[in-house]
Amino acid sequence: MTLVKIGGHVIDDPQERQSFLRDFARMEGAKVLVHGGGKLATRLSERLGIEPRIVEGRRITDDRTLDVVTMVYAGLVNKQIVAALGALSCPAIGLCGADANVVPAHLRPKTPVDFGWVGDIEPEQIDARFIADLLAKGLTPVFSAITHDGGGHLLNTNADSVATAIALACSADFDTRLVFCLEKNGVLCNVDDPDSVISHISRDTFQQLRQQGIVNSGMLPKIEGALKAVEGGVGEVVIKHARNLLTPIGTRITTQG
Amino acid sequence: MTLVKIGGHVIDDPQERQSFLRDFARMEGAKVLVHGGGKLATRLSERLGIEPRIVEGRRITDDRTLDVVTMVYAGLVNKQIVAALGALSCPAIGLCGADANVVPAHLRPKTPVDFGWVGDIEPEQIDARFIADLLAKGLTPVFSAITHDGGGHLLNTNADSVATAIALACSADFDTRLVFCLEKNGVLCNVDDPDSVISHISRDTFQQLRQQGIVNSGMLPKIEGALKAVEGGVGEVVIKHARNLLTPIGTRITTQG
Repeated sequence: MTLVKIGGHVIDDPQERQSFLRDFARMEGAKVLVHGGGKLATRLSERLGIEPRIVEGRRITDDRTLDVVTMVYAGLVNKQIVAALGALSCPAIGLCGADANVVPAHLRPKTPVDFGWVGDIEPEQIDARFIADLLAKGLTPVFSAITHDGGGHLLNTNADSVATAIALACSADFDTRLVFCLEKNGVLCNVDDPDSVISHISRDTFQQLRQQGIVNSGMLPKIEGALKAVEGGVGEVVIKHARNLLTPIGTRITTQG
Repeated sequence: MTLVKIGGHVIDDPQERQSFLRDFARMEGAKVLVHGGGKLATRLSERLGIEPRIVEGRRITDDRTLDVVTMVYAGLVNKQIVAALGALSCPAIGLCGADANVVPAHLRPKTPVDFGWVGDIEPEQIDARFIADLLAKGLTPVFSAITHDGGGHLLNTNADSVATAIALACSADFDTRLVFCLEKNGVLCNVDDPDSVISHISRDTFQQLRQQGIVNSGMLPKIEGALKAVEGGVGEVVIKHARNLLTPIGTRITTQG
């Protein structure tokens, strides 16, 4: 099973999105898509005059912002993707974490920073069986990163975390591959050279890359998360450009060197 | 199986909505909910400065309006309802017609009036089996009235038509009851007396009521649609106030007098 996570430009740009979805639809085997919302939610917030509240570089999800991300992620983007995949002979079903309670979450603690209606996921509570049932019916689940607290409240959740948690939950039953699509060709050896892709990273090589200061600081938590996923049972994590979905270009992260 | 359709005030008013969902969650047996979007989409359109285009008293769904209704109906309202039902021990799954291609539709012909991205449903193509599978898993499907054309385009669809079509499709396998919740106690004998509910209408009594000019003209197409539904296999159609979901107050429409 391949779980692909997309976000950013490939969501925002209709042509990039359609081109990605065409590739995704052609991918063989069982697959799951998790998407962020790109800049669409920010743009809608601006048009509605919702003043962004940023703390420690991160947006606070107040009541109105939660409504906006629910509309954009779970509504507009999710259903547009589902309709597009359907037309590409890839029957899909759009879900948020609240649907069938498939991705339960809890409100992030309000200290030290109150991020508002933000959810943290409980990976061991993900309903992998429900996802497997949908896959068995030939459906491709398409997840937005909106979850709920089980008490009636929706929560805004990090799409990378949702993707990783679903991949971990499914890895008990499936040989699972997790692909993060970025706007880079992979983890780069030289941030100025888009072709300097490090083809493979394991826990050992990661230590070396970090010590040598080769890996860009923004990439460190992504690789750390990927290593935890493969150590937790995911077969491999791949970081690649959305345009290269069907090519081997990208960085593979596995447990062994 | 009971299919309940809600719209209007019960969607717009958080307290009315919660109270309705509490009753709905308590209803016994397999159930499906179909919802409209109330005035939320109109309000969002206004805030975004989208000028409504009305032809023959009906709103035209242009590109921007389609985005708004997709956000509000398939996103905000749908997921809020799913989260609320989950908290009321009624595990639910939110769907639009594009999800799992469960409610296929086609673009309404552009003549005599071009209504824009509006869909007409193909009841015989509804995937009643998929709905039955969800019900068998103990899930309550919650439908927004957004559908798709199978060619990648979402369509804005009449929620009453979606409800009727799903009820008809399910009536082949289930003893199906279709409940339309309005802001009236039912079909009224005297429009000024909210308690003058006509408790039962069949094709015969409908002719009489119409000839006597008793039934309000706005109610005529609803009753005509209900009679077609019961003649097509739905066990009964009930028109009642959303507040009276668990009470017998309302108008039952059946084939026989």
